[in-house]
Amino acid sequence: MVTIDADRFKKTFRSYSKIGRTDADGLHRLTLTETDRKVRDLFVEDLESLGLDIRIDEIGNIFGRRGGTNPDADPVLIGSHLDSQPYGGRFDGQLGVLSALETLRSFEDAGVEHRRPIEIVNWTNEEGSRFKPALMGSGTFIGEFDGTDTLERTDSDGVTVAEALKRIGYHGEEPCEPREPYDSYLELHIEQGPKLEEAGRSVGAVEGVFGMAWLEATIHGDADHAGPSPMHSRRDALVAASDVVGAVRRLSNRVADDVVTTVGEFEISPGSINVVPAEARLTIDVRSYDDAVVAELVERVEREVEAACKREDVTYDLEEIWRIPHTEFSPRVSRAVLDAAEAVGADHQAMVSGAGHDATYLNEITDTAMIFVPSVDGKTHNEAEYTEWEDAVAGARTFAEATKRLAARPDDS
Amino acid sequence: MVTIDADRFKKTFRSYSKIGRTDADGLHRLTLTETDRKVRDLFVEDLESLGLDIRIDEIGNIFGRRGGTNPDADPVLIGSHLDSQPYGGRFDGQLGVLSALETLRSFEDAGVEHRRPIEIVNWTNEEGSRFKPALMGSGTFIGEFDGTDTLERTDSDGVTVAEALKRIGYHGEEPCEPREPYDSYLELHIEQGPKLEEAGRSVGAVEGVFGMAWLEATIHGDADHAGPSPMHSRRDALVAASDVVGAVRRLSNRVADDVVTTVGEFEISPGSINVVPAEARLTIDVRSYDDAVVAELVERVEREVEAACKREDVTYDLEEIWRIPHTEFSPRVSRAVLDAAEAVGADHQAMVSGAGHDATYLNEITDTAMIFVPSVDGKTHNEAEYTEWEDAVAGARTFAEATKRLAARPDDS
Repeated sequence: MVTIDADRFKKTFRSYSKIGRTDADGLHRLTLTETDRKVRDLFVEDLESLGLDIRIDEIGNIFGRRGGTNPDADPVLIGSHLDSQPYGGRFDGQLGVLSALETLRSFEDAGVEHRRPIEIVNWTNEEGSRFKPALMGSGTFIGEFDGTDTLERTDSDGVTVAEALKRIGYHGEEPCEPREPYDSYLELHIEQGPKLEEAGRSVGAVEGVFGMAWLEATIHGDADHAGPSPMHSRRDALVAASDVVGAVRRLSNRVADDVVTTVGEFEISPGSINVVPAEARLTIDVRSYDDAVVAELVERVEREVEAACKREDVTYDLEEIWRIPHTEFSPRVSRAVLDAAEAVGADHQAMVSGAGHDATYLNEITDTAMIFVPSVDGKTHNEAEYTEWEDAVAGARTFAEATKRLAARPDDS
Repeated sequence: MVTIDADRFKKTFRSYSKIGRTDADGLHRLTLTETDRKVRDLFVEDLESLGLDIRIDEIGNIFGRRGGTNPDADPVLIGSHLDSQPYGGRFDGQLGVLSALETLRSFEDAGVEHRRPIEIVNWTNEEGSRFKPALMGSGTFIGEFDGTDTLERTDSDGVTVAEALKRIGYHGEEPCEPREPYDSYLELHIEQGPKLEEAGRSVGAVEGVFGMAWLEATIHGDADHAGPSPMHSRRDALVAASDVVGAVRRLSNRVADDVVTTVGEFEISPGSINVVPAEARLTIDVRSYDDAVVAELVERVEREVEAACKREDVTYDLEEIWRIPHTEFSPRVSRAVLDAAEAVGADHQAMVSGAGHDATYLNEITDTAMIFVPSVDGKTHNEAEYTEWEDAVAGARTFAEATKRLAARPDDS
């Protein structure tokens, strides 16, 4: 069994966390910024120290390959992302990349040989905070996004992805696509929810990702003066929109268990203290592991918006702006995770993810699964994000052991 | 009985409406802009044609005096405002100033003599859209605002009121204060609500103004990821804030009749499609003619905010940011309006106003009342604002007759 060096792992995590560290001990490391360049330089240096075969593609994804005893076998790909949310946490993404790095370091230390080559990867712009869409590097890699389109995407200052890559010296020459088939992809990530913590487990073997739909409703009422307009004559867009918020909250337990429903964007106009709101715009996010449940949630949201607007005598436009079916990860790879957790003695369970990850895209081209470690209080995307160190170590141990098992798999070609 | 020239009145209204006219036949004439200068120049020219004694004070309020047979008697003050909301309507304010102008013209035509001097006034910045606060000219005039403070107020570009006045040549030398006691103040205005139209009346004699309170609530929850955060672990500021919106709407018929309650400002953060909202800020406007009802509404709002936040396990700050008691206008002046309406044959009723006007401040220094004319569909503060021309004429006739009666009052000193 592989043994990782927990002290080195922690020390490395601390060094990486200094690059873009915030006063509140969080991380502000937006993709393709000068801060991102610094952490990429450190990562490349660490890959060079391991003697890996490094390549950088046109979107800035960084790969490092450790050869296998059968150099022609399909490689195992492991990694995550080093970019962060604005004033985000230190664990989101980074913990997965550094678990992969520690895995390769421990293989090097112990002289572990593996049949399949292993590639470590840092995906560009997982977060989507500076450039849209999120999961840009992995999505382009698997062909979900066109590479040329991706390079032309702009941030809020009009800087393109291509320009940002050139400025920091990470506009690689390799095309952003797989050079060969992969055997599998494995990614460690923080859970970003409270389930593992509530269950008292250190490791989750992620078997799939919720399906989801996004809807956008725009509600049109009348801007009346808050004083002289009697209640009966009003057509208040905010009253209708608030009614929808309550209905969306109640929907989460009306169709099935383990459903989440959220109104995340919500804006009104004119937004003046003594004016009845004329317009409201809101987004609705519904998720379930069961695609039929997502479909029913969408229908119910439509009925609720219609009913709320009818009650207030206002009109509306409702659009489904995105729908993605649930993802089923590879039973073989998630089985490897469960077996590895068992072998290293980590408390574990199978689970599904409420959020998409780079792994969601990789699953489209190769056998994929993920390892989750607990998020204290389920907090994420803010500076208070935290994972107990013993859980991080248990996750990295499981990750190293699972990687070793995946890379040992005989050629089946 | 005085007879106004309805054709001239309409023609004058059309000429004034061209200055700052919008494509949708509304009015965009923000206070102390170049457009405001143009309409002020026309107004001063019209006052000069009537041979009035004109003076302009340091805040730009424009007065024109027509002498009375007893030049020492306290004058009657009549007028309103010529500034508009951004992309507002043609009737708000302007109809009152031009009714006063037509009144003085018709007195001139018919050689009407009156014991008391009559002063016409155009108040600076009634709307408060460019410079805060609203009712600036009348509020400074009656001593509610300090003149020096008012002159230092800035717009969103940092331009002060004093600078804006100088640029358009309306920074007068007179101090902004009454030179002598007034006998009374009368103002015609559009209702900005649907009551007169619903009752089929042309003229409302306004006997007072609603009291009101403004509250601001800030709600603090947690920003969780919309996917991995199960519903039970959420502290969603938007869910609590929406709950408050519904409660505020229901409150309007829980305490008394003829109460209005409005949430006008409503903002959340972070406002991202897949993030549970962490913060919400909203304002609550409650109004009634009964100050005790306003007080009870404020208490009930406080209880509702507390209950909504408790339900969602979020915290909040709640502040009462403004409270103003109801205004009772002068029974003598509103009686004059009712008698005048009766005399000119205008369908009329007594009523109270849901909104404050310059008259609210003038009431603090002299006997005051208002005349309302109907607003079609109650629409106001937008380009669709409209008053049927026969109603405008009935209002102006009533206004002229009431002014004549007020100015005829014997000296009681």
